[in-house]
Amino acid sequence: MGALCRLPGIGRKTAERLALHLARARPEEARALAAAVARVGAEVNTCARCRNLADRDPCAICADPARDSGLLCVVESPADLAAMEAAGAYRGLYFVLSGALSPLDGVGPGQLGLDALTRRAAEGVRELIIATNSTVEGEATADLVAQSLARPGLLISRLGYGMPVGGDLKYIDGLTIARALESRRRREPGGS
Amino acid sequence: MGALCRLPGIGRKTAERLALHLARARPEEARALAAAVARVGAEVNTCARCRNLADRDPCAICADPARDSGLLCVVESPADLAAMEAAGAYRGLYFVLSGALSPLDGVGPGQLGLDALTRRAAEGVRELIIATNSTVEGEATADLVAQSLARPGLLISRLGYGMPVGGDLKYIDGLTIARALESRRRREPGGS
Ligand SMILES: [Zn+2]
Ligand SMILES: [Zn+2]
Repeated sequence: MGALCRLPGIGRKTAERLALHLARARPEEARALAAAVARVGAEVNTCARCRNLADRDPCAICADPARDSGLLCVVESPADLAAMEAAGAYRGLYFVLSGALSPLDGVGPGQLGLDALTRRAAEGVRELIIATNSTVEGEATADLVAQSLARPGLLISRLGYGMPVGGDLKYIDGLTIARALESRRRREPGGS
Repeated sequence: MGALCRLPGIGRKTAERLALHLARARPEEARALAAAVARVGAEVNTCARCRNLADRDPCAICADPARDSGLLCVVESPADLAAMEAAGAYRGLYFVLSGALSPLDGVGPGQLGLDALTRRAAEGVRELIIATNSTVEGEATADLVAQSLARPGLLISRLGYGMPVGGDLKYIDGLTIARALESRRRREPGGS
């Protein structure tokens, strides 16, 4: 399951379906599918610097001199990195963890890639922005990253919680409302 | 449409369906429906202080001495107030606007209830928390409230924007990601 989750574009639910399918398939079918997956895997490269899927190493993001190399955004997966890039608001670099902490899937602290992250964060990074998901696993991962990477001179931050843009209060869950209230901001009469 | 939206439990979409239905109905049908709505309306009272629907005036929230009367949370509708209460994180008082700015629905600055809000905010309020929706109309309303209510000694704040709790980055829209990044917070190693 853990390994399936780390395939590009494969979320947790799809991985579960795939795992179920594999478990039920005849042995020769399962072997053929596994071989096909291995071939695809061999064609996709990983950037050694950010661990994102890439067609070259370093990837285009890591190699871009216009990006701020003092900012390092930590995400759970290549899909999360893609969402962050699509938002178009971030101009720093990335580090892709091997998913989130999930003991039942065999992803413990040793499997996340914290050693590699610690080395990477020592290379001129002034702020580490933890952008793991706001799920239970993502929060546990954020806690662990913050604890493991803490050192003087490194600012560690976490994406803000609150109302999604376009959200209607009456359809937003209570935990999110509570966070939005907690993270309320002073509003100046002129600006936003 | 504006009037229909202000009925308890009637959202914008339901109001649109109702309005369409009324426009297509035979005159006697429409009159009968209007009379039924008027009867229901007469049975529901409004709290003069917060303008929430209530069975007595002042309502149970406004009359509760345990709540912090220095905090006033401004919402668009009774349904939004109910969502805020259900979140269980707020211990101040409320003020319910007559919806959000929506010129096409005939809700302009004069229809929102800003005069009543201004008078209410002068009664010992130290912080006004604007909790209008994060839709285009809700944001325009938040701007107008912040501009109209500004006075020395009154702190005006707005609910925070960011990731919804339980959210997965790859399914969150780009504008929300951009806001979550903008509103990121320093993370201490020990706490959250
Ligand atoms: Zn890279
Ligand atoms: Zn009241």
